Amino acid sequence: MKVDTEFSELLKRRTIRRFLQNAIPEESVAKILDAARRASCARNAQRLRYIAVVSKEKVDAIFPFTAYAGSVAPRRNPVPGETSPTVFLAVYGTEEPDNMLYADAGAAIQSMEYAAWEENIGSCWIGSFNKEKLAEILELEKEKLLFLVALGYKGEDPVQDEITLSDSPKYYLDDEDVLHIPKYTVDAITKWV
Amino acid sequence: MKVDTEFSELLKRRTIRRFLQNAIPEESVAKILDAARRASCARNAQRLRYIAVVSKEKVDAIFPFTAYAGSVAPRRNPVPGETSPTVFLAVYGTEEPDNMLYADAGAAIQSMEYAAWEENIGSCWIGSFNKEKLAEILELEKEKLLFLVALGYKGEDPVQDEITLSDSPKYYLDDEDVLHIPKYTVDAITKWV
Repeated sequence: MKVDTEFSELLKRRTIRRFLQNAIPEESVAKILDAARRASCARNAQRLRYIAVVSKEKVDAIFPFTAYAGSVAPRRNPVPGETSPTVFLAVYGTEEPDNMLYADAGAAIQSMEYAAWEENIGSCWIGSFNKEKLAEILELEKEKLLFLVALGYKGEDPVQDEITLSDSPKYYLDDEDVLHIPKYTVDAITKWV
Repeated sequence: MKVDTEFSELLKRRTIRRFLQNAIPEESVAKILDAARRASCARNAQRLRYIAVVSKEKVDAIFPFTAYAGSVAPRRNPVPGETSPTVFLAVYGTEEPDNMLYADAGAAIQSMEYAAWEENIGSCWIGSFNKEKLAEILELEKEKLLFLVALGYKGEDPVQDEITLSDSPKYYLDDEDVLHIPKYTVDAITKWV
C-alpha cells in the first residue's frame, strides 16, 4: 500500500476506465471513504451517505446498469471480469437533493478520487446509470441516489494535454490506445481583477 | 512557500474564517487555480470559469456582501483589515447551472482547498452572498455566478471531533475560542454490501 503521496502527484490523477482485477482491500476502501467525510460541505450538515459495494455478487449486479464515456466507446467500455471496476461506491443524500447537495457530492467525490489515487486505485465518477435498477439493488429511494464511483487498480495511464479556449476539450484515444484528456490552462479560464 | 505536503496532512484541512493580513503571492493563487482546472468534471466539458480577486480595492468592495457562518457569529465574523480574507475567488459557469455544474464546482473547490492548505492558506467556501451586488462588481451575469472562495493565511487552528449519528454536527467555539467541527465517522455514514 502506497501512502502519503505528495499532492502535486495526486493532481496528475485522471479518470480511469480500464481496471486490473486484483481485489481492493476493505481498509483501502475505508481510507477512501475517510476522505469523503472530511470534505467540505454546506453548513457542516453532512447530508451524504455511502454504500460500499465490495461483494462480487453485488458488483456484478450493478455493472450492467452503469454507462461509461461515449467519446471513447467501445474501446473503453469496461469488459466484465477483464477490465471492469472491482468496487462501486454509491453516494446518496439523507433527503432529496438541492444544488448544495450536488456541490457537496462533488467535493466528497473529488476528495475520494485523490485518496484512491494515493493507493494506485483509479476511479470513474459515474453520473449516467439506470437509477431505478440501481436503487432497487441498493435498496434506496431512487430520488436520493446521486452518483456512483467505480473503483479498481489502474489498468491504463491517461495523459493530460494543455489547451486554450479555441481547442476542443473532447478526450480521445490515440493510435497507441492511450487516453488523452485536454485541459484548459489556468490562463484560459481565469480573469484577474 | 511550503510545497508537496502529504495528502494525509491535507485531509486535516478545515474551513478558516480568521485570516492573517499578509498578502498571498499571485503564484500561490495560480497554483490554487491549477488544482481547480485539474479536478473532475462531467464529460470533461470544463464549464467553470474563475475570477481571481487580488486587488485590495476589489477585495474591499466584495467583502461587505459576503456572509460567514451563523453558528459562530459574531465571534467568527471576519473584521475588515484585521481578520478578513485577502483574496476572493469567484467561481462561475459558462452557462446557467444544472445539477452537474454544481457538482463540478464542488469538485473544483475541494481541489483548490487542498492546494491552498498545502501553502498554509486557509479557505472558506461561501454560498451565501449578495448575488446581485457581486455580479455587478465582478461584471458577470448573476445567473452564472455559483460560489465565492475566501482565501487568506490561516489565523486559527480548528479541531475536528469524531461523532456518531446520534450527535449534533453543529460546529462551535469552545471557551478558549477554538473552533470545533464535529464529523461523522466512516462507520456512521457507510453501509457495506
